[in-house]
Amino acid sequence: MTFMGSSAREVIDSAINQGRFILTEFETKELCKSFGLPVVEGCIAKSENDAVQIANKIGYPVVLKVASPDIVHKSDAGGVMLGLSQDDEVKDAYRKIIDKAHKYKSDADIWGVLVQKMAKPHGKEVIVGATNNKQFGKAVMFGLGGIFVEALKDVAFRIVPSDKETATEMIKEIKGFDILRGIRGEPASDIDAIATIIEKVSQLVTEFPEIDELDLNPIFVYEQGAIIADARATLAAEKPEERFRYSSEEIVSQMTRVFRPKAVAVVGASPKPGKIGYAVVKNLLDGGYQGKIYPIHPKADEVLGLKVYPTISEVPDQVDVGVVCIPAKFVPNLIQELGQAKVAGAILIPSGFAEIGNHELQRQVVEAGRKHRVRLMGPNIYGYYYTPEKLCATFCTPYTLKGKVALSSQSGGIGMSIIGYSRSKNMGVAAIVGLGNKCDIDEDDLIEFFAMDSNTEVIAMHVEDLKDGQAFMEAAKKCSKPIIVLKAGRTELGERAAASHTGALAGTDAIYDAAFKQCGVIRAKTLYELLDWSRALQMLPTPKGENVVIITGAGGSGVLLADACADHGLKLMAIPADLDKAFKEHIPPFGASGNPIDITGGEPPETYYNTIKLGLTDSRVHALILGYWHTLITPPMAFAEVVAKVVDETKKEGIVKPIVCSLVGDVEVEMASLYLEEKGILAYPYTMDAPVSALAAKYQWARYAGKITK
Amino acid sequence: MTFMGSSAREVIDSAINQGRFILTEFETKELCKSFGLPVVEGCIAKSENDAVQIANKIGYPVVLKVASPDIVHKSDAGGVMLGLSQDDEVKDAYRKIIDKAHKYKSDADIWGVLVQKMAKPHGKEVIVGATNNKQFGKAVMFGLGGIFVEALKDVAFRIVPSDKETATEMIKEIKGFDILRGIRGEPASDIDAIATIIEKVSQLVTEFPEIDELDLNPIFVYEQGAIIADARATLAAEKPEERFRYSSEEIVSQMTRVFRPKAVAVVGASPKPGKIGYAVVKNLLDGGYQGKIYPIHPKADEVLGLKVYPTISEVPDQVDVGVVCIPAKFVPNLIQELGQAKVAGAILIPSGFAEIGNHELQRQVVEAGRKHRVRLMGPNIYGYYYTPEKLCATFCTPYTLKGKVALSSQSGGIGMSIIGYSRSKNMGVAAIVGLGNKCDIDEDDLIEFFAMDSNTEVIAMHVEDLKDGQAFMEAAKKCSKPIIVLKAGRTELGERAAASHTGALAGTDAIYDAAFKQCGVIRAKTLYELLDWSRALQMLPTPKGENVVIITGAGGSGVLLADACADHGLKLMAIPADLDKAFKEHIPPFGASGNPIDITGGEPPETYYNTIKLGLTDSRVHALILGYWHTLITPPMAFAEVVAKVVDETKKEGIVKPIVCSLVGDVEVEMASLYLEEKGILAYPYTMDAPVSALAAKYQWARYAGKITK
Repeated sequence: MTFMGSSAREVIDSAINQGRFILTEFETKELCKSFGLPVVEGCIAKSENDAVQIANKIGYPVVLKVASPDIVHKSDAGGVMLGLSQDDEVKDAYRKIIDKAHKYKSDADIWGVLVQKMAKPHGKEVIVGATNNKQFGKAVMFGLGGIFVEALKDVAFRIVPSDKETATEMIKEIKGFDILRGIRGEPASDIDAIATIIEKVSQLVTEFPEIDELDLNPIFVYEQGAIIADARATLAAEKPEERFRYSSEEIVSQMTRVFRPKAVAVVGASPKPGKIGYAVVKNLLDGGYQGKIYPIHPKADEVLGLKVYPTISEVPDQVDVGVVCIPAKFVPNLIQELGQAKVAGAILIPSGFAEIGNHELQRQVVEAGRKHRVRLMGPNIYGYYYTPEKLCATFCTPYTLKGKVALSSQSGGIGMSIIGYSRSKNMGVAAIVGLGNKCDIDEDDLIEFFAMDSNTEVIAMHVEDLKDGQAFMEAAKKCSKPIIVLKAGRTELGERAAASHTGALAGTDAIYDAAFKQCGVIRAKTLYELLDWSRALQMLPTPKGENVVIITGAGGSGVLLADACADHGLKLMAIPADLDKAFKEHIPPFGASGNPIDITGGEPPETYYNTIKLGLTDSRVHALILGYWHTLITPPMAFAEVVAKVVDETKKEGIVKPIVCSLVGDVEVEMASLYLEEKGILAYPYTMDAPVSALAAKYQWARYAGKITK
Repeated sequence: MTFMGSSAREVIDSAINQGRFILTEFETKELCKSFGLPVVEGCIAKSENDAVQIANKIGYPVVLKVASPDIVHKSDAGGVMLGLSQDDEVKDAYRKIIDKAHKYKSDADIWGVLVQKMAKPHGKEVIVGATNNKQFGKAVMFGLGGIFVEALKDVAFRIVPSDKETATEMIKEIKGFDILRGIRGEPASDIDAIATIIEKVSQLVTEFPEIDELDLNPIFVYEQGAIIADARATLAAEKPEERFRYSSEEIVSQMTRVFRPKAVAVVGASPKPGKIGYAVVKNLLDGGYQGKIYPIHPKADEVLGLKVYPTISEVPDQVDVGVVCIPAKFVPNLIQELGQAKVAGAILIPSGFAEIGNHELQRQVVEAGRKHRVRLMGPNIYGYYYTPEKLCATFCTPYTLKGKVALSSQSGGIGMSIIGYSRSKNMGVAAIVGLGNKCDIDEDDLIEFFAMDSNTEVIAMHVEDLKDGQAFMEAAKKCSKPIIVLKAGRTELGERAAASHTGALAGTDAIYDAAFKQCGVIRAKTLYELLDWSRALQMLPTPKGENVVIITGAGGSGVLLADACADHGLKLMAIPADLDKAFKEHIPPFGASGNPIDITGGEPPETYYNTIKLGLTDSRVHALILGYWHTLITPPMAFAEVVAKVVDETKKEGIVKPIVCSLVGDVEVEMASLYLEEKGILAYPYTMDAPVSALAAKYQWARYAGKITK
């Protein structure tokens, strides 16, 4: 008779010493028990009599299960017998289980039979698990148990550590939460007990990094309490690689030199138009960069009127950034030279590294960079822009319109679209950065810098994968500015065949989703959203509360705007009676007060003016959505001017609220939208979804950042 | 002892005669039984002994339930006792139930106690129901039963009649279908038995229009068979209003005169610029309408050089359409005059009807129209356009660019956006129609006409509500052209508090969704989708199979395009080995074959040419998505020209496949996109989602229309 009582460390070490990476149910439960997790009482019996003795000790009814490290799927082996309520039945079950186990696997190492108390009836089945993600490390999972978790995949993940508050959030997040909350007169399940289990699982897998996957399934939850009826864990065969990291201070000081350099060297500068080394020098000059520019070339004398130096070591100045335009194979040696010259960052434009399979060359570059503390951007990139310094270190065309959003992209194509879209929409930017192969400088480095950069108010990133998800989360959590991420490869399949349910459900994207949620990242689903929200978030002031009001001249727009609000999680204010009365005074009797407020199509600009002013000045209203309809009595520009006027007037009174406009009508609404945007008011022709989605993105951040008064 | 056996008609009539609109469980089961639906065996006992006798007849274990038309919630009244297996228990239960029922409601009419066989264990609970929708009539519902249906709202609807094939489709549509299909070694449930129940419920509610709502909940489904354990029905207090309908032939002949009039009268034509009656005449002239135009005005002599007639009766010609520009109150009399002059359609521009609460005036207009067989468009509209006749019967500006899409809108604002967007995007249209209050001419009238109109290939509609959903479905089912609908008010709450689960789950939108699915309507979620798909569906040829191939110069675009394919339900072809080899011959060794095919960014136009040509000419490939990346070696216009060239060449060989292009890069990609669109190739700058969503819309139609070879 083996009673539980081993420490978690003992259980894990003993399995590893035996070369086993799958823990038995008994072992996993010991792990759990040592962490104070509630497991069904039970012991391993070595004989029939032993089994009867245990059954009498823990009390009938009992369950018997084969205990063998070689039999993972106990039911398949006929190794589980439920609901035994007498000594005879237990004896008989013991014999049968041992018998079947030998037949199932003749060489199985059979420890005996686990005798367990039957879980009380009437509990709800849930599952709690943990998995190990390449990017983010350990994550915990919660879902409804039984076949529902598999059929409906209705689960929630969080990266560890996950405290009780987060655990409660997870439980409430699943679609089937009502089942636990109790509906149709059923009693509520003990949410607190589940949250405690999730929290302890988070602690367990954090404290024991060897645990790769853990499934507590099923857990029975009752009105009071919860109990783990079955459990399984796998251990990792290898230790995860230690990640190289610069300290936060180091990153900020390095990145500050990279983005605000006093001197830039262009290594591989060329006097020949058409060459990348020529384009970079030309763009630096054309962009209006005010620092020193040092072209480096072994033979040339002059590039675009600038004196050329044969090597970086001969430059008579402290260079901060080296823009590298030489073939890939020369890069490792160059990094060493740059390091000796105390250059802070190397911008690696050339391709020919990991992206074509040349991993070894890239490894050499990374090694050189780390050794000499030279930060590496790229390789395989178009370069980067930082408008406050008029810095266009790129072979693309210059872009210098100042704005408050810093954008980055992992892909060159997406990066060029950022430039094209910004130019086309007249969107100001603080920075556009190409990350390419991302051999060193990563999203978290950029976030560290932009978080403290007074020129940046919004961060927007196209991400294909995060090299170090934990570092990303740390940086994002510290950052008090909105971060929008377009994570490409959303729909890729999970990266490995998983041994556990938790693992099988942990598609990479579910983990990214959880991580972004935990660090307040606003997730864009399409490039359009990334770009449009970049524009919108820097234009929109932060809302102070959830009360959104729609004012529209077109009933048809009102309905679609309300649809969009529901789609994007915005809350239409229930208009208080006095405010309703005040609105009614401005609109025709057949107009509709309520929300949307339909001022009807026949109204002059004054009606827009009066109703918008009322919405802006009433302190209970927190954001306005305006639906304009092109009419003869209020032409598009008249509407635009009225909106600009009322916004300006109220601003002078110190009132600043987010406003988005949707304009329907003939092509003149495009001009009116442009006019509004020039005045700093977000406006869209022919769409109700885009303005609402943009406002909702701002709300998402405001909620996370605690800006919303409840 | 009351045994079942009454006919459905008897059950319903008897309840109605007693003034009852909620049928008891016993009655509902009789209804079901008379239709051959499998219900748990049982009878109403009038005494303790009666109960024992029934129990012995049907066999233990049994359930006892109070039978009273006054006790709807039997459990609340303590009126249900389960799992009784002996005579004594049955007697005791009978007494207790009757006792509690009297206490629960002292004046309740208690018929006795329903004695039923306990359902076999191990079944899965499902629910089948029916509801009655204002627009579409009867609809059937299927979902997983128990608390899951309420917590997860995982249900499927179909408008009746719903045959067995449709029923099977419904069962497979729910997210939890795996639970019925059998997972983790569980046996599959009897899908056929459920489908049969759904089909019979569809027949039952069709044959008995009095049934308003029906809940069969729970139904237990087994490996073999299914049985209805509880049931409830409500009857409608009123008969639904008979809808007025023109015949299909009449509609087509009326609409043909409306859209291709030989003579148009403008009633209320005005010689004064700024008046609507002036604008309409001017637009008819400016648009280039070639038929006769007759301005009608009691006093004026001439409008824009045209002779004016004092009344329609004095026009010396058969007028087909009267465009009405007079105040609302004069409209009823005018319709009579138009009717006497055998005018086919009146275009009612004025407002002042139902939209401002003036329902009586609108009713008079409708009555006059029906009496005189004058079809009415509007009122409260901007008018309509039909480009093949150069007809701009509107007070908005003319729009005459011919195309193959006919668009309609219920809202004037949305209608004007259709005009603005079309003009801005250079989108040709066949028609733009304002439906406004929709007092007569409806979407189904338009579909009847456009379905047979040789100038129309795509139909696109903004809909706020359908007045006659059944007529819409009939017209849409007959129509062999794609129909796109933007249904506004998606997120409104169900219109009434429902007595049944089925009713509570049948939010109006779920019913619309089911109806659209059943008649092959492509549902746009946003105005942008409606407009963009209108453009796309007329440009894209119909795909012949599901094999989609992505060819991209930017890996980053490829990932986002693949994401979009997964989002929108497109299937990336698994490239056969020989085709893979053929692609590989055209791309660099470090490029990625597979799908997406990444030709890499450093390639010249020839590589695009070769790979696109291969994709177009290989008969196993059915559609291409091209992801272009702006590079020096292949600038945007070079790409655009290559695509146009290869499409043109293969077209000459008789190869026509849908192609969509996504262009990333600097602003020049906008010009290249415009060039491609001029060549009839759908192209989008800065987005991967829009081109894929457009292609997916075409696929959605092609699948419904049976154009896809499996």
